[in-house]
Amino acid sequence: MSNTFEKNKSVKPYGKVFKKGNVSVKKNTAKKIYNTFEMPIRISFLGGLNEIGKNMTLYEYDGDMFLVDCGLAFPESEMLGVDLVIPDFTYVQRNADKIKGIIITHGHEDHIGGLAYLLKVLNVPVYGTRFTLGLIEGKLREHGILDSCDLRVFNPGDRIKLGKFEVEAIHVNHSIPDALAFAIRCEAGTVVMTGDFKIDTTPIDGNMIDLGRFAEIGKEGVLCYLADSTNAEKPGFSASERTVGQSFETLFRKAGNRRIIVATFASNIHRVQQIINEAVSQNRKVALSGRSLENVVAVGQELGYLKVPDGVIISLDEIRNYTPEQLLLITTGSQGEPMSALSRMAFSDHRKVNITANDYVIISATPIPGNEKTVGKVINELLKHGAEVVYEKMYEVHVSGHAYQEELKLMLGLINPKYFIPVHGEQKHLMKHAGLAELMGVPKTNIIIADIGKTVDISENKFAVSGTVPAGKVFVDGTGVGDVGSVVIRDRTRLAQDGIITVVICMDSVSGEVVSGPDIVSRGFVYVRESEELMEDLREVSMWAIENCVDNDIRDWASIKARVRDEISRLVYDKTRRSPMILPIIMEV
Amino acid sequence: MSNTFEKNKSVKPYGKVFKKGNVSVKKNTAKKIYNTFEMPIRISFLGGLNEIGKNMTLYEYDGDMFLVDCGLAFPESEMLGVDLVIPDFTYVQRNADKIKGIIITHGHEDHIGGLAYLLKVLNVPVYGTRFTLGLIEGKLREHGILDSCDLRVFNPGDRIKLGKFEVEAIHVNHSIPDALAFAIRCEAGTVVMTGDFKIDTTPIDGNMIDLGRFAEIGKEGVLCYLADSTNAEKPGFSASERTVGQSFETLFRKAGNRRIIVATFASNIHRVQQIINEAVSQNRKVALSGRSLENVVAVGQELGYLKVPDGVIISLDEIRNYTPEQLLLITTGSQGEPMSALSRMAFSDHRKVNITANDYVIISATPIPGNEKTVGKVINELLKHGAEVVYEKMYEVHVSGHAYQEELKLMLGLINPKYFIPVHGEQKHLMKHAGLAELMGVPKTNIIIADIGKTVDISENKFAVSGTVPAGKVFVDGTGVGDVGSVVIRDRTRLAQDGIITVVICMDSVSGEVVSGPDIVSRGFVYVRESEELMEDLREVSMWAIENCVDNDIRDWASIKARVRDEISRLVYDKTRRSPMILPIIMEV
Repeated sequence: MSNTFEKNKSVKPYGKVFKKGNVSVKKNTAKKIYNTFEMPIRISFLGGLNEIGKNMTLYEYDGDMFLVDCGLAFPESEMLGVDLVIPDFTYVQRNADKIKGIIITHGHEDHIGGLAYLLKVLNVPVYGTRFTLGLIEGKLREHGILDSCDLRVFNPGDRIKLGKFEVEAIHVNHSIPDALAFAIRCEAGTVVMTGDFKIDTTPIDGNMIDLGRFAEIGKEGVLCYLADSTNAEKPGFSASERTVGQSFETLFRKAGNRRIIVATFASNIHRVQQIINEAVSQNRKVALSGRSLENVVAVGQELGYLKVPDGVIISLDEIRNYTPEQLLLITTGSQGEPMSALSRMAFSDHRKVNITANDYVIISATPIPGNEKTVGKVINELLKHGAEVVYEKMYEVHVSGHAYQEELKLMLGLINPKYFIPVHGEQKHLMKHAGLAELMGVPKTNIIIADIGKTVDISENKFAVSGTVPAGKVFVDGTGVGDVGSVVIRDRTRLAQDGIITVVICMDSVSGEVVSGPDIVSRGFVYVRESEELMEDLREVSMWAIENCVDNDIRDWASIKARVRDEISRLVYDKTRRSPMILPIIMEV
Repeated sequence: MSNTFEKNKSVKPYGKVFKKGNVSVKKNTAKKIYNTFEMPIRISFLGGLNEIGKNMTLYEYDGDMFLVDCGLAFPESEMLGVDLVIPDFTYVQRNADKIKGIIITHGHEDHIGGLAYLLKVLNVPVYGTRFTLGLIEGKLREHGILDSCDLRVFNPGDRIKLGKFEVEAIHVNHSIPDALAFAIRCEAGTVVMTGDFKIDTTPIDGNMIDLGRFAEIGKEGVLCYLADSTNAEKPGFSASERTVGQSFETLFRKAGNRRIIVATFASNIHRVQQIINEAVSQNRKVALSGRSLENVVAVGQELGYLKVPDGVIISLDEIRNYTPEQLLLITTGSQGEPMSALSRMAFSDHRKVNITANDYVIISATPIPGNEKTVGKVINELLKHGAEVVYEKMYEVHVSGHAYQEELKLMLGLINPKYFIPVHGEQKHLMKHAGLAELMGVPKTNIIIADIGKTVDISENKFAVSGTVPAGKVFVDGTGVGDVGSVVIRDRTRLAQDGIITVVICMDSVSGEVVSGPDIVSRGFVYVRESEELMEDLREVSMWAIENCVDNDIRDWASIKARVRDEISRLVYDKTRRSPMILPIIMEV
C-alpha cells in the first residue's frame, strides 16, 4: 500500500477528504487469466444503452459486485416539469451487501450526476481521479452527505481490489481532464471498458491516452471489450483539442478592440485553459459568468489542473473598470439553455453584461442534437444587438471529446477482444460501432448490442444475454425523487395541452339537492372573459346532468361525477375541438 | 385578355374553379419606370422575417394594396397545446377595402397555410399557379369556403393588374413544382420578390428557373430586390434534384429482395416522381402511407404534374398480396413527427405496416433544425426491428430547395438592384444574405434588415424603415382562432411544470363558518396515494388560514382565497421545492 499521490508530484495532494483506500500499485503483472471453471462475468446495464445519459453498469463475478459510473440524464421534452432523470436503483439496493464500490470514469454529469442520490441509499467507496472526485465532492456537499461518504483517489496505473475483481485504471483523453478506462480482471478473464474517450496525440496537458497500456493488455488477452459509441457514425479521426487554441489565437486578433465573449462547456478545463492563455497573451482580463463554470474553475485551480497567472481573473462587477479591448468573458450557455448566462445576455436579461456592437462572441461548442433551435435563437438575439457571432462550423472553435471511426478501430485493433459490446450510445451508434468491430474481424456472433435492463454473461465459452434486471428512469422534481411517475406526467401532459375545467357542486347529503353551484373554474383552457357564453353553457349542462341523475335515482357521487365529466367533455369538444381535463368536485353539506 | 392555359398545352386546364381574372398577356414591355414624384412603395412585413414560417408581405402604393403569400408556422415547444400559428390579420382587416388580391409564390404550408383563415375575413382574389391552387383548393374545401372563394390561375409570363400595381410571374425552381417569383411594377419603380427558390439547371420537369427573364428585368432597372435567405449560411451551389434520383437507383438495387420504404416531404412531387420512376424500372408496386401524401399525389396526378403508369400504385391493404421485393412504400414522417406514418411504423403503431429485417428504409430528407432528436428516435426504433436505414448524409438522398450562397450571388448579379431586403429567414440568415449583397456591390446603406411588423418605404430617393404595423402570432387551437393567448399559455406552462392543487371550501354566507371542506384535489402534482400525509398537511393549513381570516374578521372571499393560496404555496414549496398552480374555490351555501 503506498500513497497514490507520489506518482503525480506536479499536482498537490487533494486533501483529507480522500481516505486512503485499498489502492494497490502492483503493476504489469502480465499473466494470461483464463476462465478455468465456467463461472461467467455478469454485466448488467442499468443505463447508458439506447440512450445518451445516466450511464451505470454493474459487474458481478462469483457473488461480488461493483458499479461503473452513476450518471443522470436531462429530461426529454415530454417529461414535463421533471428536473433530472436518474437510474432506477432497485437492483442495486437489492444487492447492496454484494457491492464493493463504485468506480468513476470521469466527471461529466452523465457519469456522476446520479451519484449523490445513489450514495444516500448505498454508501460504498467511490473511486476516481482527483479532478473527478473534486467535482463529485461539490455535489455531495450540496446534498449534505459529503462527510459520510468515502471518496478514494484512483490514478492511472493504480489497481484496486473489489471483491474477486481487480480493476486497473488507464488514462484516456476526453473533453474533461483525468478521464479513465478500466481493465477489469477476475478468474473468468479480462474485460476492458472505456468511459467516454478520444485519441488526442497533442492534448493540452501533454498526456496522451495510454495506447501502450491498452496494447499490452490486448496482448495479454482480452475476453470482452466495452467502448464508447457516441461518434461511431463519424468517419475519420477527431481533431485535437489543440486546434481550437489555434482558432482562438486567430479569432481573438480579429476581435480587435471589441470585448470577447466565449461560451463553452464548463467542465472542459483544457478549453478554458486555452482561452485564458490566449487572453493573457493579448492582454485581456478574464471574467466568468455562470455558476457551473465558476465552480469548475475553482476546483480546477485548487487542484492544479488550471493555471492562471495572478490578477488575470476579475469579477463581473469589475468589468466596468475596463474597456472592451481589455476584456474577455467566459460564459456557460453554449447549448442555448434558457436560464444560462449567455442566453440571459442575449435576451437582455443579464444583470451585469449588456451585449452591444462592441462584442465579439464565440460559441465554442456544437449543438447537441435537439438543441439546434435554442442555440439558433441565442445567436439571432446576439446578432440583433449588433454583436458579431462566430458559431457552428464557421471556424474550428470546437472539437468533439468522443472517438471517431478510425480511433474506434485503432482501439479495437490494439485490444483485440474475443467479445465486443458497444456502449454509450443510441441504437444507431451502437450498430455502427458493431459494424466497425465486424470490419476488424470480430465475428458477428461475438458482438452483442445490449439494452438498458439487460444482463450479459461472459466467459471463455459463453457470451449471451442471460436475463433482465429492474432498470429505468426515476424522475427528480424539486426535492422529490420518484414521486412523479407516469400518472403524474400523463396528467401534466393533458393539462399542458388543453388546461383544466373544474366543476364544483355542493349537494345536500340527505336530500341530494344541489345547494350551491355548479361553479365552473377553468385554467389554461380559453381566455375566460371572452368565453362567458361557453362557460354559461357548461354550467347549464352540468346542472342538467346532475338533475338527470337525481331524477333517475342515481345517488352515488362517483356516478354523478362521471356523468358531469362526460357531458362537459362532449360539449367542450363539440364547441372547441379541445379536450381539457375535467375535474368534477362534489361537496357534501 | 386571353386564356392563360394556352401557353401550357401539355397540362390540361385546371377546371371551373378558377374564374378567368384580369390576367393580361402583354409581355416584355421593357421600359424603365422611374418614380417621377416621390410617392414611395410601402412594404409591410406581416410575417416571415426573423422567423421561419408564416410568410406574409403587404405591398402598398398610392392607396392600393395587395398581399404576397399567407403562410402558417408550426408552434414552438413553449406554445403548449397550440395546433398552428397564423399571422395577425389586424392590419389587413383595417385596410380591407384597399386590398386588391393575394398572390401566392408556391404551395408550401409556410406560404399558403394561413390562407383559409384569411379568406374568411377578407375575400379577395387569390392568384397562383395551377399546382399551388390545387393545394389551396383542398384546404378551402376542408374549411367549407371553397365555393365562395375566387382562385385565379397565374402562370409564369402572365401579368396582372392589382390597382396601380402590375405584377409579372416568373418561374423559379424549388422543392415543389410551379413556384414563382414576382416582378412588381408601379410608378415608383420595379420590385423583384422571390418566394423560396433555388437554381436547378437539371430539374425533373426540365423547366429551369427563368434566369433570362430576371436578367432582362435587371437590365430594365430594379429599384428593390427581396429574396429568400434560408440557405444564406451555406457556401457553394445546391445540388440538383436529379442527383437524388441517381442515389435512388443505386440504393434500390442495394435493397435486393427487401421491401423499400422511402420517407419524404409530401409536397415534393418531383421527388415522388423519381421514386416512382425507379420503382417502376425495378418492377415494384408503390403504396402510399400518410394523408398529406395521398392528397398531394392525387392533386399532382389530376393536374398532370405526376405521371404514374396504370397499375403501379396499390393501396396499403393490397400490400399483403405481394412479396417484399415487389413492394415500395412512400411515406410521410421524414421529420420524425410523432403521429406521422413512418413514426407509427417505427413504434409498431401502424395498422397496416410492420417493420422487419426485410425492410430497407430511406429517409429522403434532412432534419429541420429542432427535429434532429425526433428523427433520431424514429431511426433507432426502425433499427431495433432489424431494418436497414439510410439516413442523413450517408448518401445523397436529399437536396435542399433553397439557394446556396453562389446561387444567391448569381441572382443578385442578374437583378442588380438599387436596394436590397433579405427575407425569409432568421436574423442570422438575413445578415449573411445582406453580407453577400455587400460583396456584390450593394452599398450597406442600401440594405435593410427588416423585421415582422416593420414597414419600409422605397422610392428612387428614399429607402427607410418608416414605421410599424400590427403584426404577430395568432394561435389556432382546435376550432378556436385567437382565443388562446399569452394568459392561457402562461397557465398551461405552469400546469405542465408542477400541476394544480384545487382547494374547495363551502362556507355559510351569513355566519362565515366552514360548512364543508376544505377538500384538496390535485392533478399532475404528486402521486397522491403515496403522498397522503402531505395532502393532510395541506388540508390543515387551509383550515388554519380560513379560521385565521374569520378570527380577524376578514370576510371577503378574495382575501380569504389569497390567504389560502399563499399558505399552501409556501408549505408545498418548503416540502417539495415545487410551485404548482393553487386554485382555491369558495362555495357559498
